[in-house]
Amino acid sequence: MREDREDMQNFFNPRSVAIFGSMKEGKTALEIVKNLVEGGFEGDIYPISQSGGKVFGLEIYTDFRNLEIDLAVIAIPSPSIPPLLENLGRQGVKAAIIISAGFSEVGNFEEEEKIKKIAREYRMRVVGPNCAGIMNTENNLFTSIEVRALAGNTAFITQSGALGGAVLMMAEELGFGFSKFVSYGNRCDVGEADLISYLRDDPQTKVITLYIEGLPEGRKFLKEARETVTKKPIIAIKAGKHEAGRRATTSHTGSLAGEDRIYEVAFKQFGILRVEDLEEMFDLSRGLLSYPRIEGKSIAVVTNAGGPAVMTTDKLEDLGLEVPEPSSALKDKLKDLLPPHVSLRNPFDLLAYGSAETFSSVIKAIAPEYDALIVIFVPTAYMDSVRIAQAVGEAKESIDKPLFTCFMAGRLVEGGIEELKRYGIPNYKTGERCAKVIHQIVLQAQKNR
Amino acid sequence: MREDREDMQNFFNPRSVAIFGSMKEGKTALEIVKNLVEGGFEGDIYPISQSGGKVFGLEIYTDFRNLEIDLAVIAIPSPSIPPLLENLGRQGVKAAIIISAGFSEVGNFEEEEKIKKIAREYRMRVVGPNCAGIMNTENNLFTSIEVRALAGNTAFITQSGALGGAVLMMAEELGFGFSKFVSYGNRCDVGEADLISYLRDDPQTKVITLYIEGLPEGRKFLKEARETVTKKPIIAIKAGKHEAGRRATTSHTGSLAGEDRIYEVAFKQFGILRVEDLEEMFDLSRGLLSYPRIEGKSIAVVTNAGGPAVMTTDKLEDLGLEVPEPSSALKDKLKDLLPPHVSLRNPFDLLAYGSAETFSSVIKAIAPEYDALIVIFVPTAYMDSVRIAQAVGEAKESIDKPLFTCFMAGRLVEGGIEELKRYGIPNYKTGERCAKVIHQIVLQAQKNR
Repeated sequence: MREDREDMQNFFNPRSVAIFGSMKEGKTALEIVKNLVEGGFEGDIYPISQSGGKVFGLEIYTDFRNLEIDLAVIAIPSPSIPPLLENLGRQGVKAAIIISAGFSEVGNFEEEEKIKKIAREYRMRVVGPNCAGIMNTENNLFTSIEVRALAGNTAFITQSGALGGAVLMMAEELGFGFSKFVSYGNRCDVGEADLISYLRDDPQTKVITLYIEGLPEGRKFLKEARETVTKKPIIAIKAGKHEAGRRATTSHTGSLAGEDRIYEVAFKQFGILRVEDLEEMFDLSRGLLSYPRIEGKSIAVVTNAGGPAVMTTDKLEDLGLEVPEPSSALKDKLKDLLPPHVSLRNPFDLLAYGSAETFSSVIKAIAPEYDALIVIFVPTAYMDSVRIAQAVGEAKESIDKPLFTCFMAGRLVEGGIEELKRYGIPNYKTGERCAKVIHQIVLQAQKNR
Repeated sequence: MREDREDMQNFFNPRSVAIFGSMKEGKTALEIVKNLVEGGFEGDIYPISQSGGKVFGLEIYTDFRNLEIDLAVIAIPSPSIPPLLENLGRQGVKAAIIISAGFSEVGNFEEEEKIKKIAREYRMRVVGPNCAGIMNTENNLFTSIEVRALAGNTAFITQSGALGGAVLMMAEELGFGFSKFVSYGNRCDVGEADLISYLRDDPQTKVITLYIEGLPEGRKFLKEARETVTKKPIIAIKAGKHEAGRRATTSHTGSLAGEDRIYEVAFKQFGILRVEDLEEMFDLSRGLLSYPRIEGKSIAVVTNAGGPAVMTTDKLEDLGLEVPEPSSALKDKLKDLLPPHVSLRNPFDLLAYGSAETFSSVIKAIAPEYDALIVIFVPTAYMDSVRIAQAVGEAKESIDKPLFTCFMAGRLVEGGIEELKRYGIPNYKTGERCAKVIHQIVLQAQKNR
């Protein structure tokens, strides 16, 4: 396997993209051209089809032999792909994304072998086949039929194209953006190891997330991952844990031992953060983008609502984190700040006295004694969530500790949550979700210590 | 403790409600009157305050001695409450909700004892103090300052008023309705046991959910719960598992042994379904409203998207459910229904062939061999989620097995999810959440077998 960074640049930063396939209404190739044009890609876009004509103001080429093509995106029927790839190879094209299905995933191993052979022969890198394509939000490259990702600092790479589509839709709903998106399908050439290696040095990417079913190049992957986690965190969903799940994966042969237990141990050892589902993946990405590290496991919970704080504290302790009481010096300090009757213990329950000023002064007072803070706010009829969010945001800027919020819930806190975003504070729907995120970040910090 | 059902009717079906407290802008009593009026309560509403005058077209009474009051809602400062309660008792009022705080939760045990004594003396039932009130969506009774609940078939009872507020906001966001909502605060008289006993015979309530921190009347609660679960399921969040969480609860004395492990065992033994957080509570309620029972643990997964199906299958097997292969007779049947290349195994991955017709015919064919089905759908550019939802809905009506869906995600499936609601099919954001719900319902069926 070759891992030249220059080769990979053709996928993410091509000067020209040629799209092969029918340019008729509803066809994949046309949808990709549309996404490139509407997305605002500034390089050259060459639609290529025997039909000729024009599409979105672009000429449809019937002959590609005189075009300079950095990246070929192929959405023609599978039997026609090997001869096309051969021609592209001869012409010196160095990168191809094969969107089309009909290969090893339906038992057609022979055709997939042909592709591999041609790629090797011409030193051409291939993503796919049977994939949903690549996106780079930095240069508006959307070589995919999926909904265009918003820009952000998380890269997502996935074996399952359909899962990729679901992730993009969930992200859109959450207003969550990506740096790069890669669906690599049957992985006939480019795989996780190449992609991680590339993303390690991509300045736009701060967090790498991946969905994998098997790891045919387990050792190589782990080597790349180990080198990467010193620079940026990797979050992984590893599916296919049990027998039934595994028989549903397309790639259940030749993977790293195959036993889930081995993945679990390897991931822990190499500092890869494993999550169980997509919601956890989004939660943790958002946490890591704000706070790559949390130095210890002593957590303070500040709240205006008893019940949610108790549930959050339960979850923190379930996960092995600590919610220790404040020192007596700190208690004395808090006595001066707070009305009588307010609890001076952790969780710090401000009750109905949880005004913007009280939240702010308590946060500033307790921050030095804890490694991270969770601020829980349940709105009442009398309180403006935006004011509380501003006070929390300003307090956060004067402390140097990670601060997470749980502004619960619905329309009364929408404005507050928007405000928290401006301060770079990650907000979670429940304190339990927030506790899980802190736990994972603490684990990672311990690993890389 | 008295548990006369007639007594409890005063809280849920009063002919008249008197609200005691300041009727000035922003005050609690005024907000409650507003909620009763705007909510459309058809009984008599008596605002009572020394100010006199009018509010929302209603006369504010300065003297309540000639009024016939089924339910008194009290939001005056705590020191004035015992004398008021004494007067109400003398007048024959049999039910009072004390919203006001300032009692045992801030160390003022003496005042709370006075209330208890008066209640005993006059055989008056008291909810609170320090609570968020009661709602009954059947007769539009909203004696609370919280956002008015939508109508539904789930009752929610909570010790923590602030948590109650958060639950109502989350529910509003989800379009989830309640039959009854009760926040009982410091529980000086009416507690979980009374409420469960009442709700057991409430026809509007199909599922009972509760948030508890401690159970001072543990034995009585378990007795009532045991009798109730034969009629309708109980879902419980028990908070205060660990030391830090417990010290944050207002009621950490005198509870049933206090050790979380004991609750865990008792809940299992009595068939109470324990959940970890509010999202799980909503998920499970929705599942139980559609399917009170699932007969066994053999689950089929039908999908048009490999990745999400693998993750769902993993979760099902993590939880001890089974995802068995179809019989060879069923495989033969499927061969006739499906294009070649489509997997005849469970999970049944229809790939790009997952049209409305294919979903429908596969669901009908496999239903007899499984105890429940999960249908996962990830939309592609070419597919109309409403059509798929209709096909799934119609198929469900011709099988007699619980069918859950996971239409993922965002705006492309919004229409489909609306359609599924019309068929009474619960849809989940992820297959993992759906798996958790099925697991809990299966557990319950095993318990009550």
